[in-house]
Amino acid sequence: MKRVKVSNNVIRRLPRYLRKLDELTENGISRVSSFELGSQLGLTPSQIRQDFSCFGEFGQQGYGYNVPALRSEIASILGMDRGFNAIMIGVGNIGRALTENFNFSEWGFRLIAAFDVRPEIIGTMFHDVPILSMDELAQYLSEHKVDVAVLTVPKEAAVPVTEMLTANGVEAIWNFTNVELTAPDSKILVENVHFSDSLLSLSYFVSEREDERAARAARAERSGV
Amino acid sequence: MKRVKVSNNVIRRLPRYLRKLDELTENGISRVSSFELGSQLGLTPSQIRQDFSCFGEFGQQGYGYNVPALRSEIASILGMDRGFNAIMIGVGNIGRALTENFNFSEWGFRLIAAFDVRPEIIGTMFHDVPILSMDELAQYLSEHKVDVAVLTVPKEAAVPVTEMLTANGVEAIWNFTNVELTAPDSKILVENVHFSDSLLSLSYFVSEREDERAARAARAERSGV
Repeated sequence: MKRVKVSNNVIRRLPRYLRKLDELTENGISRVSSFELGSQLGLTPSQIRQDFSCFGEFGQQGYGYNVPALRSEIASILGMDRGFNAIMIGVGNIGRALTENFNFSEWGFRLIAAFDVRPEIIGTMFHDVPILSMDELAQYLSEHKVDVAVLTVPKEAAVPVTEMLTANGVEAIWNFTNVELTAPDSKILVENVHFSDSLLSLSYFVSEREDERAARAARAERSGV
Repeated sequence: MKRVKVSNNVIRRLPRYLRKLDELTENGISRVSSFELGSQLGLTPSQIRQDFSCFGEFGQQGYGYNVPALRSEIASILGMDRGFNAIMIGVGNIGRALTENFNFSEWGFRLIAAFDVRPEIIGTMFHDVPILSMDELAQYLSEHKVDVAVLTVPKEAAVPVTEMLTANGVEAIWNFTNVELTAPDSKILVENVHFSDSLLSLSYFVSEREDERAARAARAERSGV
């Protein structure tokens, strides 16, 4: 595939487009205009056209976008058709929650193994995923193509485990530890999952509503209602 | 506080600003220019100035932003100083992971209770949070101010539990269930946590790197190296 440099903001909107297109498909909608798509996602039609134009021509003037075709293009741009392998490091609560509830294959990933330090779970299977010992990790990495490591270890293990992963050729980390992992000169790709971002957005909207109510109440009081 | 209508995109950048300012504070940095802040966040200086101007004047020409002052302003805009109460519905893996690892109070929230249907955990405490029965929920909501419900129930319970919450006055839901909860005319505030978004961004970057390597290899082959 020919690659153009795409801005970070566009890349981060692509998964949202994908989810929206999946939703449209589920509702039996097979064609969508940039206007409709924009209004459903809080973006302007021109922003949407501009985003998609980074990757070539998808839409047709006066017709809009073909939902399955656009969906499949975006999935391909996101690498969902590349058969990436993931391993999980740390099978605690968050690791178990992801293994149980997160459908890796829906997003093009195979979760091929998990690693932990606790003897009581090493050697067992958890939802079809073998749990191996951390002592086996280096050997495992030398024998398997691992594209992404899901980091769900306790905070204090985050940095040493990352060093071990990168020393053994892992280049991408999906980081749930809330520990900052990227060194400025590092070649490692890190995506941090920040739960707080969505909670704080919600907090903003709750505050806004509180203020609106207080303002209404104040107005009502002033007008003697 | 006087409120102006702020675009959704600005609201969603505020938590990122907050995290970055916390990081600067940790590194002993107390002043930052819009240029520096922008380059660290992948935004233009003018975008940053524009974002902050929505809420009034923070920066000073030629001086930049005072990090603790800006941090405290953003925290206040996000409602982090309002003492919001949260309850959790569903104490499965993801609920336990959040209770254990997510520092609600760091973001201005108090997790005051959790609810579940399993008799074996009802009546116990988990990390200082009492686990109550779902049968007690309506009564509890009539006696406590609950600003946000953290929804960590199994998929099939998402819609009925949401209906019960809203019927009892809960207006904001932090939704981990991957089930779409918002009706277009509903007054309920919902923030969905989509793990897939960050995994797919990572997937994009891994794909990009793969393609760059393949392109380099092809060039090397053509030039007979």
